[in-house]
Amino acid sequence: MDQLRFDGRVAIVTGAGGGLGKEYALLLASRGAKVVVNDLGGGRDGSGRSNFADAVVKQIKDNGGVAVADYNSVVEGEKIVKTAMDNFGRVDMLINNAGILRDKSFGKMAEQDWDLIHAVHLKGAFKTTQAAWEIFRKQKYGRVVMTSSNSGIFGNFGQANYSAAKLGLVGLANTLAIEGAKYNVKVNTIVPTAASRLTEDILPPEMFKAMQPNLIAPVVAYMVHESFEDNGIIIDSALGFATKTHFVRGEGTPVRAKPEDAVTIESVKAKWPQVVDMSKAKHLDKNAEVTVDLVEKLQDFEERAKLDKGNKASYWSTYDYNAKDLTLYALGIGASVSNESDLKFLYESHENFSPLPTYFILPGMSMESPIVQQSMPPGKHADFTNILHGEQYIEFLGDLPGTEGEFTTRSYVAEVLDKGSAAVAIVNSEIYQNRNLVYRTQQHIFVLGQGGFGGPRNSSIATEVRPVPKRNPDAVVEQRTAEDQAALYRLSGDLNPLHIDPQVASISGHAKPILHGLASLGFSARHVLATFGGNDPANFKALKARFMKPVTPGQTLVTEMWREGSRVHFQTKTKETGNVVIGGAYVDLKQVSPVKANRVSASGLKSDGLFAKIIEEVNKNQAMAKSINGIFLYNITENGKTVKQWTLDLKTPAVYEGPLKEGKPDVTLTVTDGDLVEIASGALSPQVAYMKGKLKLAGNIMLAQKLGPLLKSEAKL
Amino acid sequence: MDQLRFDGRVAIVTGAGGGLGKEYALLLASRGAKVVVNDLGGGRDGSGRSNFADAVVKQIKDNGGVAVADYNSVVEGEKIVKTAMDNFGRVDMLINNAGILRDKSFGKMAEQDWDLIHAVHLKGAFKTTQAAWEIFRKQKYGRVVMTSSNSGIFGNFGQANYSAAKLGLVGLANTLAIEGAKYNVKVNTIVPTAASRLTEDILPPEMFKAMQPNLIAPVVAYMVHESFEDNGIIIDSALGFATKTHFVRGEGTPVRAKPEDAVTIESVKAKWPQVVDMSKAKHLDKNAEVTVDLVEKLQDFEERAKLDKGNKASYWSTYDYNAKDLTLYALGIGASVSNESDLKFLYESHENFSPLPTYFILPGMSMESPIVQQSMPPGKHADFTNILHGEQYIEFLGDLPGTEGEFTTRSYVAEVLDKGSAAVAIVNSEIYQNRNLVYRTQQHIFVLGQGGFGGPRNSSIATEVRPVPKRNPDAVVEQRTAEDQAALYRLSGDLNPLHIDPQVASISGHAKPILHGLASLGFSARHVLATFGGNDPANFKALKARFMKPVTPGQTLVTEMWREGSRVHFQTKTKETGNVVIGGAYVDLKQVSPVKANRVSASGLKSDGLFAKIIEEVNKNQAMAKSINGIFLYNITENGKTVKQWTLDLKTPAVYEGPLKEGKPDVTLTVTDGDLVEIASGALSPQVAYMKGKLKLAGNIMLAQKLGPLLKSEAKL
Repeated sequence: MDQLRFDGRVAIVTGAGGGLGKEYALLLASRGAKVVVNDLGGGRDGSGRSNFADAVVKQIKDNGGVAVADYNSVVEGEKIVKTAMDNFGRVDMLINNAGILRDKSFGKMAEQDWDLIHAVHLKGAFKTTQAAWEIFRKQKYGRVVMTSSNSGIFGNFGQANYSAAKLGLVGLANTLAIEGAKYNVKVNTIVPTAASRLTEDILPPEMFKAMQPNLIAPVVAYMVHESFEDNGIIIDSALGFATKTHFVRGEGTPVRAKPEDAVTIESVKAKWPQVVDMSKAKHLDKNAEVTVDLVEKLQDFEERAKLDKGNKASYWSTYDYNAKDLTLYALGIGASVSNESDLKFLYESHENFSPLPTYFILPGMSMESPIVQQSMPPGKHADFTNILHGEQYIEFLGDLPGTEGEFTTRSYVAEVLDKGSAAVAIVNSEIYQNRNLVYRTQQHIFVLGQGGFGGPRNSSIATEVRPVPKRNPDAVVEQRTAEDQAALYRLSGDLNPLHIDPQVASISGHAKPILHGLASLGFSARHVLATFGGNDPANFKALKARFMKPVTPGQTLVTEMWREGSRVHFQTKTKETGNVVIGGAYVDLKQVSPVKANRVSASGLKSDGLFAKIIEEVNKNQAMAKSINGIFLYNITENGKTVKQWTLDLKTPAVYEGPLKEGKPDVTLTVTDGDLVEIASGALSPQVAYMKGKLKLAGNIMLAQKLGPLLKSEAKL
Repeated sequence: MDQLRFDGRVAIVTGAGGGLGKEYALLLASRGAKVVVNDLGGGRDGSGRSNFADAVVKQIKDNGGVAVADYNSVVEGEKIVKTAMDNFGRVDMLINNAGILRDKSFGKMAEQDWDLIHAVHLKGAFKTTQAAWEIFRKQKYGRVVMTSSNSGIFGNFGQANYSAAKLGLVGLANTLAIEGAKYNVKVNTIVPTAASRLTEDILPPEMFKAMQPNLIAPVVAYMVHESFEDNGIIIDSALGFATKTHFVRGEGTPVRAKPEDAVTIESVKAKWPQVVDMSKAKHLDKNAEVTVDLVEKLQDFEERAKLDKGNKASYWSTYDYNAKDLTLYALGIGASVSNESDLKFLYESHENFSPLPTYFILPGMSMESPIVQQSMPPGKHADFTNILHGEQYIEFLGDLPGTEGEFTTRSYVAEVLDKGSAAVAIVNSEIYQNRNLVYRTQQHIFVLGQGGFGGPRNSSIATEVRPVPKRNPDAVVEQRTAEDQAALYRLSGDLNPLHIDPQVASISGHAKPILHGLASLGFSARHVLATFGGNDPANFKALKARFMKPVTPGQTLVTEMWREGSRVHFQTKTKETGNVVIGGAYVDLKQVSPVKANRVSASGLKSDGLFAKIIEEVNKNQAMAKSINGIFLYNITENGKTVKQWTLDLKTPAVYEGPLKEGKPDVTLTVTDGDLVEIASGALSPQVAYMKGKLKLAGNIMLAQKLGPLLKSEAKL
């Protein structure tokens, strides 16, 4: 790296007679800056006078540098700035470093101990920075560093005055960073821990010796360099380490149960665990983001309350999934590389990588939620020992969700039926993505032995199973489940020991652990999709099924299918017993026709700018581009969907948006918008991206390898 | 919930003539507090006088409450405290709420605009709080709230004075929280956004209307209640929401490459991306934690630098794993529920749940690291297209790691051999847990076509393969791999498309995608362990193997074994071809003898206190305990290992540390220390814990169900 220089720049360093300030002054001067070496007091408490500044100036001059001493107090900061202007005609950098201590336990702290600390640290920084501010604005350049302290960030016994002043400086820097931004005036904060006049008899001697100011000075020097880009950040530095620190906010919570409730001290206390829960804390950059966040949460709170009107309370949960979850699930329900057309469910870099539609039943599962228990009539109870998953429905409202994403699920018990011996809770789930309802599911949860409460026997709102036609099935698919099918399927989330623990299975009356009903259903839905839906998940609209009997892993599933228009009725038997294990089931398919590609708005892609640069570079360096002699198609993805394509035709050469105008690409690269930008910036190596499946390559991979050096070049392809 | 009351308590609320302060005063008075209603100015800028406080006092009295008006300035806080003492004889709560605004862009901000803001907000809080402080200390009770602002936390244009003062209050609260802690004086900060005199013509009218102070007052009232336990925290509240906010620190980084290097501006700039990386940021509670953290990192930096002396630079990485990773891996290398003794590898709630030893090869894999590339002699290169995993060694130094944990891995190229056509990089990895070296691995990475550079042909430091004995094998195990074996194994992390993409396999010269060498090796190591090691992973000491030829998924592996003392030589063939696919291999077993249970120090378990309470409760309620009529054994785990056992004998009844003195427990409960405490506290329902595998039950599960109500009872069993 070239030396970072400050030639032609003028720096003011306050409190530069010793310690950190002296190191700052020496370092900046050694790199070409003209330095105003300001120092006032000699003692840690601000008492006495010194000629320390002269000594520092002499040392700078002896080393061939340029500096001038200044003995003004920072509370008359305008005089310090005048020293700079009188001597050097400009100011570019200001390091507010002057400081003193007046430690006392709070009860004993004299008013003047408070006032003096606040004058030197806080008002001194205000006055000196303000005196330089108009100069910075006019010249559209300035670098300011405030000096804070971990005593402010964490508090420190005996430093009520100092901790208040030191964190006050962070508040000042926060506002100045905003006000200075458009004038290229950057205001940042250093939190140094160093051996200095302030710490010399506080730190243990060993530590004091190690905490050399010269280990911090280069950090601060970088923070006032022209090339420094951060603004309004806090950097903690000591012992040759540096660490950023900033505020984060928890998710927060309404402090009442419903929007129409009053907020009371009791409702606040009831919600307090969520108020102080920092497990999903995040940093926000601006106060405006707090407002937006709050307004969104308020809307959610009100909308969710509206949904609950007339129903039992909803249960809200979130669900994340990614490509690995989908492939693990696909193996769990018997997709196999031995069927070529299944590869797209098993290989995340496949050009048509897709979720199996029944995967999306999982985010709607609410067996673990308290709602079924809460819905029981008086005297009846439901817990994990007496509930069974009886029926399942799923219906997509539009396109199938992508290959990764996050859902928010609302589940509620719509109705509790009385089937005599058993109660049946009809649980509806609505699954949202980015606040849009994308699909819904319905479960019938049988609660054994809890019927007979005089409730309705039949439902008006449940989606019902349909009897299969009486004719012979139009198609039959057989597939053996593996001995380890349940052991594998359970890794998709349902860890109920009934499916793996022989002892638990035995207590529940089974000879062996049984396969999950949803696993058998997944097999059959796959059979239907492959037989009548072109094995294209985009054709899948809805599914309904009843679980009749358990399946033992290792048994062969026989899916019998009847097509009636766009509905495929099916039932599933185990070959070994002839029992119907899934009955009254159907899949509704969409029109069997070419499915439109799922496209979302591609505006605001970060990679757009990248390709703009590539176009520029290729135009400039046509020979280099041609030497690669390949045609590359980029699929830019977001949330698992291709949102834009770019063709990089290095044969012509030509670069344009959209697929290749004619012929086939040599290599297809599929990568998320974010990852591509990371690769181009060098933050992510293309090799690592490829190995991790973040960069997917199809076609002539060796040619992609040739693109490697280019990816790392200035051209950032 | 019982009403939270303040009877007998005296509160001072500054700036209580209107807005938030008025709401605080009204609410506290309505709940029994006697309130000093302090107010000075009328206007937002502090100008004018008002009789607002009288009106508030009248309103309180009209409602049957007790209050007195006070018109002193907060900068004479001692007078306000005197009002409380004179009228009510005590002070218990102080809400520093008084505030004004003097907004100006920084360049135009008059000194008096700065001074006045700082006097009212910061010095006023200092003075008033200090006047009450000795009273709080003496009575060993006090609740203080400071009022900060998002203008301080984020900065706000035109509020340099206000943002500095407001964040200064957080610094003050931080120190006072520390100084007050042992006297039960709690000092916290509210960040309110409400409609008030300060915001009335700043907020849009709609927003202003919604931001009612009465939505915030209960939050602040709770923060000054006797039952409030937090100290030194910041709570943001608006619109009936509340959110905690606090500082977090990034991981930080040394700002130089090696400890012996000087820190320079250039070395700082080079490290800046790591300095500002907040992806692993965390909150620290105390400044002392910063120091400990820093000292540990400094030691790591120095120790790692020592390790690098004389070697190429090491590559450090971290690796997390959990029970799901282990079971997925076990399925990937052919463990099956059809072998009863494999269930412990597949079922995370099994009483002997164990990792398969070869799993631990994975955290030592360094195919993605840059070190092999960097180790190449001049003119030679290595990348993912020309490297092959040739040989593998793993050796455990003590006990096998537990069933979940985090490793830190150091990998380095110890030697580069010249094999004529290929180069071979000998990569050593050392795997640490909590800074202790727990095992090591060695890989031979073949770099095709990159030999012939005149390097050594043979290694002095490599662990070499051993020829198998010439006699017939002592044992042979055959196992067919599944068609989907590679599709499944790759989910353990090696996503190289060679193992699933037919096109990539074809380019590489294979008819079909091939199985991972480490998958085949895992099969064979399982066969050896089951045949000669009692299928007990604790018997596993070391393994060495060379990968000779690829295996196609679906082929049958034949592991031939020869036992020689504690070493079992083996080689693996594919039955279909007779080819040796793994050669020169061996497993070293430990003495075949009962293996000592892995115990770690059980001091400091959170659940110890819980059992102390249980003993107390059971003694008090012997009849209730006996009614359950069961004996429960608790295995308390940490990092996947049982660290303590407790017997809960409700038949006798008796509760004691350690296993049952005689007989067998009816139910064995296995749970981590942390989860048990969560269950007892009600934060985690036992049902959910069980369904998620966090609470493992063996034995009479129905009896455990009887324990359910008790788990939720006051007794917290």
